[in-house]
Amino acid sequence: MLKSLGFIQQLRNLGKRKVSKMSSSIGAKISQPVWQKPSKESQESVLKLYNSLTRKKEEFVPRSGGKNVSWYSCGPTVYDSTHMGHARNYVSIDVNRRLLQDYFGYNIQFVQNVTDIDDKIIVRARQLYLFENFVAKTPAPNAEVRQKCQEAALKYISTNLNSAISSFQQFESWYASLDIAKEKEANPKFGMHSASVQTAIEALGEENAETFYEKVKDVLIPVLDEESGSTVNDPEIFRKLPAYWEKQFNKDMESLNVLPPSVTTRVSEYVPEIVDFVKKIIDNGYAYAANDGSVYFDTVMFDKSEKHEYAKCQPWNKGQLSLINDAEGSLSNFSASNGKRSPNDFALWKASKPGEPEWESPWGKGRPGWHIECSVMASDILGSNIDIHTGGVDLAFPHHDNELAQSEACFDNYQWVNYFLHTGHLHIEGQKMSKSLKNFITVREALDKFSSRLLRLTFCSAQWNSPLDFKESLLVEVKSLEQSLNNLFKNVRALHADIDHSEESGKYVSKKLSQKEKDLMKDFDRYQDQVHEAFCDNLSTPVALKNIGELVSKTNQYIAAAGSDLKIEPLVDIVRYVTKIMAILGFPARQDGLGWLDEANEAATGSSNKEELLMPYLKCLSNFRDGVRRLAIENVTSGEYLKLTDRVRDQDLLNLNVSIDDRSDQGSLVKFLNDEEKDELLRILVEKEQRQKEKEAKKVEQAKLRESKENERRKKAEMAPENMFRDPELYSEWDQDGMPVKNKDGSDVTKSMLKKLKKVYDQQKKLHSEYFP
Amino acid sequence: MLKSLGFIQQLRNLGKRKVSKMSSSIGAKISQPVWQKPSKESQESVLKLYNSLTRKKEEFVPRSGGKNVSWYSCGPTVYDSTHMGHARNYVSIDVNRRLLQDYFGYNIQFVQNVTDIDDKIIVRARQLYLFENFVAKTPAPNAEVRQKCQEAALKYISTNLNSAISSFQQFESWYASLDIAKEKEANPKFGMHSASVQTAIEALGEENAETFYEKVKDVLIPVLDEESGSTVNDPEIFRKLPAYWEKQFNKDMESLNVLPPSVTTRVSEYVPEIVDFVKKIIDNGYAYAANDGSVYFDTVMFDKSEKHEYAKCQPWNKGQLSLINDAEGSLSNFSASNGKRSPNDFALWKASKPGEPEWESPWGKGRPGWHIECSVMASDILGSNIDIHTGGVDLAFPHHDNELAQSEACFDNYQWVNYFLHTGHLHIEGQKMSKSLKNFITVREALDKFSSRLLRLTFCSAQWNSPLDFKESLLVEVKSLEQSLNNLFKNVRALHADIDHSEESGKYVSKKLSQKEKDLMKDFDRYQDQVHEAFCDNLSTPVALKNIGELVSKTNQYIAAAGSDLKIEPLVDIVRYVTKIMAILGFPARQDGLGWLDEANEAATGSSNKEELLMPYLKCLSNFRDGVRRLAIENVTSGEYLKLTDRVRDQDLLNLNVSIDDRSDQGSLVKFLNDEEKDELLRILVEKEQRQKEKEAKKVEQAKLRESKENERRKKAEMAPENMFRDPELYSEWDQDGMPVKNKDGSDVTKSMLKKLKKVYDQQKKLHSEYFP
Repeated sequence: MLKSLGFIQQLRNLGKRKVSKMSSSIGAKISQPVWQKPSKESQESVLKLYNSLTRKKEEFVPRSGGKNVSWYSCGPTVYDSTHMGHARNYVSIDVNRRLLQDYFGYNIQFVQNVTDIDDKIIVRARQLYLFENFVAKTPAPNAEVRQKCQEAALKYISTNLNSAISSFQQFESWYASLDIAKEKEANPKFGMHSASVQTAIEALGEENAETFYEKVKDVLIPVLDEESGSTVNDPEIFRKLPAYWEKQFNKDMESLNVLPPSVTTRVSEYVPEIVDFVKKIIDNGYAYAANDGSVYFDTVMFDKSEKHEYAKCQPWNKGQLSLINDAEGSLSNFSASNGKRSPNDFALWKASKPGEPEWESPWGKGRPGWHIECSVMASDILGSNIDIHTGGVDLAFPHHDNELAQSEACFDNYQWVNYFLHTGHLHIEGQKMSKSLKNFITVREALDKFSSRLLRLTFCSAQWNSPLDFKESLLVEVKSLEQSLNNLFKNVRALHADIDHSEESGKYVSKKLSQKEKDLMKDFDRYQDQVHEAFCDNLSTPVALKNIGELVSKTNQYIAAAGSDLKIEPLVDIVRYVTKIMAILGFPARQDGLGWLDEANEAATGSSNKEELLMPYLKCLSNFRDGVRRLAIENVTSGEYLKLTDRVRDQDLLNLNVSIDDRSDQGSLVKFLNDEEKDELLRILVEKEQRQKEKEAKKVEQAKLRESKENERRKKAEMAPENMFRDPELYSEWDQDGMPVKNKDGSDVTKSMLKKLKKVYDQQKKLHSEYFP
Repeated sequence: MLKSLGFIQQLRNLGKRKVSKMSSSIGAKISQPVWQKPSKESQESVLKLYNSLTRKKEEFVPRSGGKNVSWYSCGPTVYDSTHMGHARNYVSIDVNRRLLQDYFGYNIQFVQNVTDIDDKIIVRARQLYLFENFVAKTPAPNAEVRQKCQEAALKYISTNLNSAISSFQQFESWYASLDIAKEKEANPKFGMHSASVQTAIEALGEENAETFYEKVKDVLIPVLDEESGSTVNDPEIFRKLPAYWEKQFNKDMESLNVLPPSVTTRVSEYVPEIVDFVKKIIDNGYAYAANDGSVYFDTVMFDKSEKHEYAKCQPWNKGQLSLINDAEGSLSNFSASNGKRSPNDFALWKASKPGEPEWESPWGKGRPGWHIECSVMASDILGSNIDIHTGGVDLAFPHHDNELAQSEACFDNYQWVNYFLHTGHLHIEGQKMSKSLKNFITVREALDKFSSRLLRLTFCSAQWNSPLDFKESLLVEVKSLEQSLNNLFKNVRALHADIDHSEESGKYVSKKLSQKEKDLMKDFDRYQDQVHEAFCDNLSTPVALKNIGELVSKTNQYIAAAGSDLKIEPLVDIVRYVTKIMAILGFPARQDGLGWLDEANEAATGSSNKEELLMPYLKCLSNFRDGVRRLAIENVTSGEYLKLTDRVRDQDLLNLNVSIDDRSDQGSLVKFLNDEEKDELLRILVEKEQRQKEKEAKKVEQAKLRESKENERRKKAEMAPENMFRDPELYSEWDQDGMPVKNKDGSDVTKSMLKKLKKVYDQQKKLHSEYFP
């Protein structure tokens, strides 16, 4: 190109583009004509995320300047089952992660923690241990035990329901006088506590030991803990419980098809780093060690600093003591004497009392506070500035605000996290989920009732950062979307196979699009655009799904109207697109791209481990074969059955790269073979067959040999013994048995010779009589 | 937020961010502190594509302004097998399409044509038809036929090799005198033509008719065509051949895992639209009808126009008659008298001669020229401005330049295509692939020797717009990459399963990353960046694969060094990423995301249609079962075998959602059931069992009834007949048989009464003697 861009631009503005001809008239070189660069729209859609730090949708700009994104997400505190609230949180974050990764093409390092040191875990583990110990010591509850439990129940009443009560009679008349609904309104735990008391009262008349202990458990445990909690000091007790629930959590996440984190960090593996981090905060002047051996974050100093801000997510919650103390944990000391300088300050390091696990630190034995773990672990992997931090909205204050404060105090920087994304609450039929409301649903329970797909589809039908009401009418709506997607996928696959079949059988199938298909493609274009806009707009899955639903309807309308003029290509194109979008949202796709995996097959093909998928079928086959074989062995005349079972093993299954090893004392063993192994087995079989053939050939040969020997012998036997020496060339006289008497020359046959001849004669006599008796 | 953006900006510039505190001291409302928006890098990487229209890498900007992209790609002329040159072209374009779609997130409408009207097709179809006809008429080649073939061979020699030769002897001495290598260099088709002649000479002594005809085919066909080509006029002849090869092409593309087009357009379905398009070009003054009934594009008028440019891709090739005439086709008239105004002009519409298929037009019967089809079909679906047009570089001039000219002439616009992407040539061991060089490889042949994966990996190892030399040393390199990917996938899956198993069995497995893993993750970050840069840089798959290969090496080094301290999470993360990138390039991934599908399983799971995958195994099972069943039926005592085959059908397989329908005259039918169908079958089975039970219960009851009746009868039979009337209440005297003679009152028993009693007596006698003979 000889012309400068300015000149070309001028020409373009004049509506002239004949640069090449002009330039070729100037220079000798033939150059290409001007190319009109497509104009870039200034309002091109970009991904925007609702950022809790501004409470606005902000354009997402990764700090790497490229595609790499760092992401920290608050993980579970592992002391109990995962429930639907967790499911909503983790699935929504998973959908967001998948969209950023697979729709917007980011490479995400996704770090998630496991909180395995926590007051809730300590209390739960210790109490469970004490209770199990108590039951083990007195497996049959004697009078003393019953007395203790009765007292425990009364104590429970006075602590949790009414401190004025000191007998069951008093309790019952008091309870009968109450307006229960009103009580429940006033105290959300009223139902739970009164139920615990009532089952404990029932238990006192209970004979069965197991039932007895189950019923008094709630009231007995606090007493046991008070009596002997402080004696529990085996670290293993505080390790076993969270380890169990961590595994359960992982299984639940797998069932919900939540991608595993890139990196999982456990608090229990990070205590030394936490100590160092706290030291650094103290050094920077934003924390102090109290007399009791705990370390507190100095919210006042931090907030006063020109460089920092405290409570960036929810500054309006500063000073909300109920939130602050709740986050400090049930084992903390909330009295004024705990050494905190301000009630807003929070523990970075907690001195451990007897009966609590402990680690060494410069401030004495203790354990990490709750918030500090996330700051330390996220920073260890992702550094002092992170792109995205996620978690449930209930964690925003004080947990996330404290995390921010800690990290910014440690690194002495202004902004630890660029985008703070908070997932919305889950409600059940309009109410908060709680055990006392009896609408508490664990993930396991939910998965017994609903498929993993339906749950995810339900979560996707709400905006991730809005509350979601899990209610019947919503489920009906979601099921209808699921059904219409299912129908489209099944129909298009069937139509596709049908048309393929027609073409295979030689029928001419037109592919030319008429206006109907062009209209459909235009709609398709528009819906693709709208889905893109929806995802750019704060990952709006509900709007995207609405558009997908409409696209599916339009497509179904086309199919219904098209009849035999139907063109398959646009349908396949649409189904591929819908499948791709659904796969990005976490609904596994078929390998052929024509729809999601069948729910029924999902478990089997979800892992798409071919071997896992086939094993049950092959076990079925091999069991069957084992049975036939057993019967055939019992019935010795059934050689045919055995030939059949051999053939299935050595030919049919081997050709499918499967070997079956027959075993004498158990069912046969099924193995998958690679081609080399198969070839090896085939070679062995061929060799075996070869050897078998050789053996048979040898047998035949030996039989022949035997036969010829036999023939020889038979021929030899034909000679009667009395005739065998009648040879005038040798002898001249014989006795009546045919034994020679005189030699040809007339001399007597010698005795020694006669003896020899007699031996031969006897042998022949035996042989002859064998054949000619 | 009370502050204006300008104010915040000011504060930020001053390094102060304490807006919230200031604003809260001003207003009463508590607002959030300032958020630092991450800065957007100005040099952020964008996708650039090498555009033949500028011969530079240009930023890709879709005309939609969003994510929707229109794409037209030149498809096959269907008259012969797909070869490796095609494979390289279609796979490279497929890789580019997948990258734009699945890496860069564009929604692509991908239109590809099938050229099923073309001089090559016409000649091939007609000649094949004539040859088959000739053979059918004289299946045994008589003297006349042999004479004709001899003449044909001589004619072939003089046409294709040396016009001075008129006998075989002359040919042979001439041939013996040649420097063959030199001849081949001078005429690339020398080898092919001389081979045709030599096999024809051989054929003259050949007795076997089939062999004879096979050997004379090449020399005979031109003669037959010359004699009777003009009589061939059945349109079906010109339709069958391309239809066959279109199907073969589609099968080859499927084998190569090339995505099917969104829309396929066939020239034969577009003739009326082509006529309209040509009319519009004439109306716009850029084409003219010649006297012979053909229509030509007026390159001179077009190139002279201020609005247009002719030969945008390769202006330096304007006037290259060998290229221009080659593109016009072998059935065109290249004499000066054909009515063309300039030798650069090309046919939009060709008048058909006898023996050529024809359609009605305003210019008489004829058929479309080659280039016009693409302009018409692409425009019909994608309109007057298209984002991307692809094809092999050999099509750039004149085909693509003529396409551009036609479309821009029709729409009277300046730019029909924004990005013209040309894939590079394929060479075999440094040479052009050709039949005469004996290095011509069809896709079928290649797939017999190499896997589809290896071919794609090889194509990806070269830049799509550069030549690719398919040579041994390259294959060795590619195989080594394939192997190292395979190893990583297998190792990480095995390690993953091993660690899962350890955890399941209660072992504590640390997840904490040490510096070694952090270093690996840092490398991982860098390679992800570099892969992204490579894809942005003109979809550079070789550079991307180089980086993937290095990442794999680093990861394998980590695995080797880590020993029992190995952490699985970073490995899984890396394998997921590598799998994703490979899947985007068209290497199908396992459902678990941990590697690509095993080559051995690929055919079966490539479609991942579970049913297709399982069917052979199930057929194996059902065949086996059929065999056992047949034997069991033959041997009537083998009820046990039948029970077994029933159980496998009604329990084992049904539980796996498979039904087996036994059929009387053929093997049983295997069906997959959904849960409803399974439940229905189970219900029927339960009902059947119920009915069976009821039947059996009835039987038992009937047996009981029979038994009680029998007991009654037996009891009745106990009475000896001579005792049965010995009732003193009724009679006073009896005869010796026990028949009553006198009544109780002494009167005679009447004769009629006696008769009745005798009957009863006889019955009882019979009954009694039955039991007490």
